[in-house]
Amino acid sequence: MIKIAVLGYGTVGSGVVELIERNNTLLKERAGEEIVIKYILDLRDFPGDPYEDKVVHDFGMILTDPEISILCEVMGGVGAAYRFTKQALEAGKSVCTSNKELVAKHGAELLAIAGRMRCNYMFEASVAGGIPIIRSINSALVADRVEAVTGILNGTTNYILTKMEQEGADYGDALKQAQELGYAERNPEADVEGLDTGRKIAILADMLTGKSVDPDKVATEGITKITTADFAYARAAGMTIKLLARCRVLEDGSAWVMVAPYMLPTEHSLGRVDDVFNGVQITCTMLGEAMFGGKGAGKLPTASAVAADVMDCAMHPGRTVMRAWSDEEAKLTDTAQTESRFFLRVKAGSADTVRKAFAGSVPVTAEREEDEGFFTPAMKEKEFRAICAGLGDVVLNRIRLV
Amino acid sequence: MIKIAVLGYGTVGSGVVELIERNNTLLKERAGEEIVIKYILDLRDFPGDPYEDKVVHDFGMILTDPEISILCEVMGGVGAAYRFTKQALEAGKSVCTSNKELVAKHGAELLAIAGRMRCNYMFEASVAGGIPIIRSINSALVADRVEAVTGILNGTTNYILTKMEQEGADYGDALKQAQELGYAERNPEADVEGLDTGRKIAILADMLTGKSVDPDKVATEGITKITTADFAYARAAGMTIKLLARCRVLEDGSAWVMVAPYMLPTEHSLGRVDDVFNGVQITCTMLGEAMFGGKGAGKLPTASAVAADVMDCAMHPGRTVMRAWSDEEAKLTDTAQTESRFFLRVKAGSADTVRKAFAGSVPVTAEREEDEGFFTPAMKEKEFRAICAGLGDVVLNRIRLV
Repeated sequence: MIKIAVLGYGTVGSGVVELIERNNTLLKERAGEEIVIKYILDLRDFPGDPYEDKVVHDFGMILTDPEISILCEVMGGVGAAYRFTKQALEAGKSVCTSNKELVAKHGAELLAIAGRMRCNYMFEASVAGGIPIIRSINSALVADRVEAVTGILNGTTNYILTKMEQEGADYGDALKQAQELGYAERNPEADVEGLDTGRKIAILADMLTGKSVDPDKVATEGITKITTADFAYARAAGMTIKLLARCRVLEDGSAWVMVAPYMLPTEHSLGRVDDVFNGVQITCTMLGEAMFGGKGAGKLPTASAVAADVMDCAMHPGRTVMRAWSDEEAKLTDTAQTESRFFLRVKAGSADTVRKAFAGSVPVTAEREEDEGFFTPAMKEKEFRAICAGLGDVVLNRIRLV
Repeated sequence: MIKIAVLGYGTVGSGVVELIERNNTLLKERAGEEIVIKYILDLRDFPGDPYEDKVVHDFGMILTDPEISILCEVMGGVGAAYRFTKQALEAGKSVCTSNKELVAKHGAELLAIAGRMRCNYMFEASVAGGIPIIRSINSALVADRVEAVTGILNGTTNYILTKMEQEGADYGDALKQAQELGYAERNPEADVEGLDTGRKIAILADMLTGKSVDPDKVATEGITKITTADFAYARAAGMTIKLLARCRVLEDGSAWVMVAPYMLPTEHSLGRVDDVFNGVQITCTMLGEAMFGGKGAGKLPTASAVAADVMDCAMHPGRTVMRAWSDEEAKLTDTAQTESRFFLRVKAGSADTVRKAFAGSVPVTAEREEDEGFFTPAMKEKEFRAICAGLGDVVLNRIRLV
């Protein structure tokens, strides 16, 4: 019998408890041993809850209980969660987490402890919820080199952009809808400014580079400046707008990592990943391109990923499953030096100015009187920004093209 | 140092050799030991080949060499491949294969031997090439219950159907194109009649049911009767036609398994999996729906999957990774008893007959004079067939709807 503790009895925590109870027989069959929840750590009490007798408030009880070999850290944050995880790993107990902030910030250190103590720090649920992207990179693609990842990794912003595209809602209304449905928080900043997505791509970039990518240094642009006008031009060009997280490992071992709204063709493999769904496209040396899609959040999809990690720990006693990355900081490429094409929305009547400033730009016709749209040729971001600055308030918005 | 043998030096075999040589450093880093190809078994000689000195003709050499711990069986067929695999596993050597025919036919037996001998029989490459669907079901979804799978699992037929849809090519021309490009064999029967797809869905059905699904009992319909006329109606309805492999586990433990062309909306997650690409959609109790896409065939994508299996064997000495299924035969549901909606193409002028025969059917308008199209309401296949039989030669074609 394998006894585990769940740290944090919120949405994901209660999902993990529900899954492990409901799938008890199946888990026992597959792990060869029964998996039993012994403790649920939370500051609150849960009177009337079927598992209220398992709720404890003192982490020390869990840490010092030799029966506990696996912990699920689903409390979030980088304070207590960090201390508890570190202590547990140092005691040789495996930890499975959905806490992307912690993995992005302290992954290298925690994985190193797990490796030293021959236990596991697992984090499938921290990126793209139930989509097995972490496991695929770690295990399915173990013989291959993953060169690049492009993903829709945040359900909240994807929901907002989908509403804007499909219902013509403006940003504020779409955000309000998302908040009413519980998809967006009252303070939506971490989602809409791309910080959440930045943490997730930092984790994938850690795995791709084998070094530590500081989430705070990821070039990040949110979706708050996207308007219905931009979608009108996107639609006219057979395209859509998505908040993409991108990472590409360059030949010198440095990485280009970026989070920003992009225009992409609707037939792109991420073009019809809509609503709260997530999608991840990877490019490997041998395999070429592959694509994963599914629910990136939600109680049970996330719990499914956490529980798969628990199973991996249960089935690998004394063996570390995840490849660690080093705590050496990865060299990030200056995004100002990267090339891309841009969609440019400018004031009506400024077509000549744009054509002169961006030789080779192509107009996008959306039958609008308020403004005009163009696609620029490929150019360095730095150069693009300089020209835009010269154009002053003629430029209403610009969005990178995939 | 881990020494391996590659059985069969054809397309996949040479891909495996190329990958293991090219990614040598990366594999060593990740496995902790160097992986070296000691033998390549083939009946032919390969004078001038860089690995000609590794080529042997006698399997006995490999079987009796205690240095060899892992074999890649990429020779195909169920004769010698079966004997060699069985002997290797019985000698405690792990086998990694791309041989779907062998896994579909003798998987239960071979997995049981691997389990008993504490070695591995791995077959990621046997279904959907480089897409990690086997590993995902076995490992990423280990805590979840996979209820259903729908996949485009054959690149040849998908290429043909894509050409028919996008270029208006008729079946014969599209097949010829596929043959000229090397996507289809001179005798294309195994692909176009759905047999290859049937073997692959049988393997996934084995995994979903935990029992043995006889590939010869999978209800299979090929694509040879699909015409450009059918695509005209599909297009008019915003749909496309794909050869789908489907499996659903029912509550009584029996399975509904089927291979047939289906009409599905283009915005379906498999609707834009085109050309030689494969796609797999899975439905799980906890995770809900997830989708995987990528290259289902080809030298290096397939080699990437075989090599990932080799790595898993290398990193799990003495431990069996794959869940086995029992040799008890799975109960298959009679497909005549399943319900679906149908697209029906009938002779021009027979609309009244169809409406009378299929109450509640809806016309599909494609501006064609030669024939007319209808979608029927959901009904049992048996009932549908009986009514169609009564209509005689009025019915030109019928295709299930997803």
